[in-house]
Amino acid sequence: MTHFVRFSGGSQRLIAACVLFIFLACQTAAAATYPATVLPSWNDSATKSKIIDFVQKVTDEGGAEYVKPEERIAVFDNDGTLWTEQPAYVQLVYLIDRIKTLAPQHPEWKTRQPFKGILENDMRAVAATGNVGLMEIEHAADAGLTTDEFKQNVTKWLDTARDPRFRRPYTELVYQPMLELLSYLRANGFKTYIVSGGGTDFMRPWAEKTYGIPPEQVIGSTDKVKFEIDKNGHAQLIKQGVINFIDDGDSKPVAINRYIGRMPLLAFGNSDGDLPMLQYVSSGTVPNLVLYLHHDDAGREYAYDRKSSFGKLDKGLDEATKKGWPVVSMKSDWKTVFPEPQAK
Amino acid sequence: MTHFVRFSGGSQRLIAACVLFIFLACQTAAAATYPATVLPSWNDSATKSKIIDFVQKVTDEGGAEYVKPEERIAVFDNDGTLWTEQPAYVQLVYLIDRIKTLAPQHPEWKTRQPFKGILENDMRAVAATGNVGLMEIEHAADAGLTTDEFKQNVTKWLDTARDPRFRRPYTELVYQPMLELLSYLRANGFKTYIVSGGGTDFMRPWAEKTYGIPPEQVIGSTDKVKFEIDKNGHAQLIKQGVINFIDDGDSKPVAINRYIGRMPLLAFGNSDGDLPMLQYVSSGTVPNLVLYLHHDDAGREYAYDRKSSFGKLDKGLDEATKKGWPVVSMKSDWKTVFPEPQAK
Repeated sequence: MTHFVRFSGGSQRLIAACVLFIFLACQTAAAATYPATVLPSWNDSATKSKIIDFVQKVTDEGGAEYVKPEERIAVFDNDGTLWTEQPAYVQLVYLIDRIKTLAPQHPEWKTRQPFKGILENDMRAVAATGNVGLMEIEHAADAGLTTDEFKQNVTKWLDTARDPRFRRPYTELVYQPMLELLSYLRANGFKTYIVSGGGTDFMRPWAEKTYGIPPEQVIGSTDKVKFEIDKNGHAQLIKQGVINFIDDGDSKPVAINRYIGRMPLLAFGNSDGDLPMLQYVSSGTVPNLVLYLHHDDAGREYAYDRKSSFGKLDKGLDEATKKGWPVVSMKSDWKTVFPEPQAK
Repeated sequence: MTHFVRFSGGSQRLIAACVLFIFLACQTAAAATYPATVLPSWNDSATKSKIIDFVQKVTDEGGAEYVKPEERIAVFDNDGTLWTEQPAYVQLVYLIDRIKTLAPQHPEWKTRQPFKGILENDMRAVAATGNVGLMEIEHAADAGLTTDEFKQNVTKWLDTARDPRFRRPYTELVYQPMLELLSYLRANGFKTYIVSGGGTDFMRPWAEKTYGIPPEQVIGSTDKVKFEIDKNGHAQLIKQGVINFIDDGDSKPVAINRYIGRMPLLAFGNSDGDLPMLQYVSSGTVPNLVLYLHHDDAGREYAYDRKSSFGKLDKGLDEATKKGWPVVSMKSDWKTVFPEPQAK
């Protein structure tokens, strides 16, 4: 009874064609649930589906995994996740340029590291001074500025500074697919946050215009600042040029708790500095999606693959694979990397 | 020609009556611009007018002092500004109760200050141990708890704890006129923040339900916390019971810059711990309104007048008068102080 009908070769081909047709129709139907306007710079990959499925799930009011809008928090690393971090962190380039600008007033820097190294473009000598050197640079660059003056300096610098490879303003070397993801999440009621090792004060002057992320949703490393009333009775905050908090590694989940106080639903990072934040979010009792950006596109951006920007082996990629966090391949998941240059 | 018409006595009275009528009509017209539903628990005083005028001014799109919604930030102290801080800070009462709860596991506390003082209700002895004692209490009460456990403890405690004078839950000893002001500001596009010396972790579990202020808009003092992955691979944050940042005095403007990064338009405080925050906001280049709550109502709440809760002379009241910041009198500006008791 198992073979009560026998097909001819022609019928078999017909059936195979029908099966294929049904299969393709289903594929099309599945794809059709995502309008072309959603994440247009993302290829129609499993990663894109996972993002959209997750957002649909937590915003589906009748669904089991529905999350109220006020609890929809998404956190993003900045350097290497929202904008390029190669060949050097943009903030480091800013500091170097600032030291060069101030150098004429400091003849003693010609013979003193790490300043000598900066003035002679000898980055090996600068790196050799380690964290102590970095702190001296920070202090020399910013101590004594009011928070307003610092903001103006950053804004002015970004207006003219250009990336050496792409010859574009740094604020144009942000990732177009990530800009779309930020907008898509906000359109679905999410509050989008930056949680970055970069300086809070350095990111805020441009994050709103560039990412649509307002100052109060930018969390980063902070300096000590001092409250002062000047001789005209005007209250102001003076940067001390001394680090208060480094928002990297284990400090990222600490900062999420300290600043936000809710468990995010979505976290996106790209390096070991983000790993604790990703582990934290993936341990939440709320539905969550944790994503890991893989820099594997030397042609359009950079391929540092399994090495973080400091040349250390990246553990995050292993953990992502182990935990099943979607690893976003810049090369295969993204149609474009950077946005179109802005008209002048 | 100056006296071409001479009035009889009757005519003069008629004119006086007309003038009075017009005057009253104008008064009524002015009052009519504020519907009765706006700040209903506030008396129709100059203070109320200043608040409403300010909000109308910064939300008037055609006006010279219009401020875009995303830039409308208002900051409020908590203890003594949004809820009662007498006879002791609520958080201190929590800590005392917590020590009493834990005491059976710590027989050594019977002979050791500040614990001995707490167990014997000898607050003078506790106070004598000063900040060092307070830090010991904090450590004994909270060290080792996960942030989630701490949140549960606070929530559970607030459910049963009652204020000794009013016999009500502490979350009902919030000021009704201030609840209305918070709602009124939010209805006009403001983001309302708490900037308090109290613990961030202590306020967040109830601030959203009580004030409509979400966790990410609660800024306070913070503890050190440690990121940890437990033996089940679950990431969590452990409170160290050690103070990280005290959000009081000069630290309040520092916190506003660190957490919010925009200059608030409105600030409301009630003590010298708030003064730098008020000075900072009043120095902003954006339109601003700075208010000072004066506790002068012993019958309905407390009258500590020119003395802050620690018995020091209050400089803020002088500065408010000097700078023309509206001083809100609890006694004469507020129709009611506390909200109606909630139905069980």
